[in-house]
Amino acid sequence: METSSIDIPEIVVRRLPLYARALHWMVQDNVQTISSSELGAKLGMSSAQIRKDLSYFGEFGKQGTGYDVKFLLSQLQQILGMQKEWLVALVGVGDLGHAIARYGGFGRRGFKIAALFDNDPKRIGQQVGELQILGMDSLAMVVRGLRIRLGVIAVPAEAAQQVADQMAGAGIRAILTYAPINLHVPKGVRVRYIDPVVVLQSMTYHLKDAVRSRE
Amino acid sequence: METSSIDIPEIVVRRLPLYARALHWMVQDNVQTISSSELGAKLGMSSAQIRKDLSYFGEFGKQGTGYDVKFLLSQLQQILGMQKEWLVALVGVGDLGHAIARYGGFGRRGFKIAALFDNDPKRIGQQVGELQILGMDSLAMVVRGLRIRLGVIAVPAEAAQQVADQMAGAGIRAILTYAPINLHVPKGVRVRYIDPVVVLQSMTYHLKDAVRSRE
Repeated sequence: METSSIDIPEIVVRRLPLYARALHWMVQDNVQTISSSELGAKLGMSSAQIRKDLSYFGEFGKQGTGYDVKFLLSQLQQILGMQKEWLVALVGVGDLGHAIARYGGFGRRGFKIAALFDNDPKRIGQQVGELQILGMDSLAMVVRGLRIRLGVIAVPAEAAQQVADQMAGAGIRAILTYAPINLHVPKGVRVRYIDPVVVLQSMTYHLKDAVRSRE
Repeated sequence: METSSIDIPEIVVRRLPLYARALHWMVQDNVQTISSSELGAKLGMSSAQIRKDLSYFGEFGKQGTGYDVKFLLSQLQQILGMQKEWLVALVGVGDLGHAIARYGGFGRRGFKIAALFDNDPKRIGQQVGELQILGMDSLAMVVRGLRIRLGVIAVPAEAAQQVADQMAGAGIRAILTYAPINLHVPKGVRVRYIDPVVVLQSMTYHLKDAVRSRE
């Protein structure tokens, strides 16, 4: 599939993994075909939006029969670069970092936590699963040596910018951060935020009138 | 502001908290006004999209001068129901649950973890901050007593559906889950997923060609 010449809006790119996840669940539930309106109902989107998003990448659906779930999923995985395994460096191995390091969902879906880092002397050297926690002074060497391009930040907010600087300096090109502060990174490095407050707020929008009217 | 009569697309509702978060950071950086194209650049969206999203709720920007950051933020907070404090019940107090319970970002942005639950006898009775971990058999009573409408699930995937059932039965109307399985909930209950894999995939889309061409 030739997609590199098309300029896909970023907002569409960010929705593709949601389609892939919904399709993944459907494969597990033995669903074979799905219409764009059924997929839309699951994702809170219109069928027109879904058809438009997917049309950037080719013709996946058949009029009247919908999408073949497995085929569409495999196409999306290809578009998203999921044929290879991506190595990830995780910095910050407190409660959250431990939970991330042990999360089973990475391996099944194309990612491998390949190195753990912390700056706390009490944590450095500890074993978490198959990995030993390394000091931050090893980050650049390990990231370069393993050619790691993805980083996850699970440190407190006040330490996150410094970690991002070190990651970018070592060659990491995409950072997922759990710390609730805005990170400044060099051009060419992407940042995404995981933020439970944002998710809760998108639901309180719907709840606020219902609750108010009862109280 | 009268918004209840307008039918806002769900996809727009889900973007509003992202605008609010970006504006919150700007207030902290003492930014006073921002254009839709500057805001778009920060969020990876077009200025036309932002103007269109915000136009559902009224006229916030002035032609040529952009948006007043503080005013737009306060309007978004009102739209999202952030004037009141929302109580949250958290189920699952392992590594992830501990990290969530201690996360400072809730209180500052309108949410309060009001009760912790687990089914592990070794955890029940333990203190986490100001809260004691309760057994699952207390969930319905506590949720009803405190009129909690929001729940966070931080249990392993295999236990998540049962927790969601209990939450819905107790009157929780919005669930944020970290467990990587599709939850089935009654009509009237909303579910959102926090999933680091989805976030990483939206970045590997951009990295895949760059990395491939070098390898």
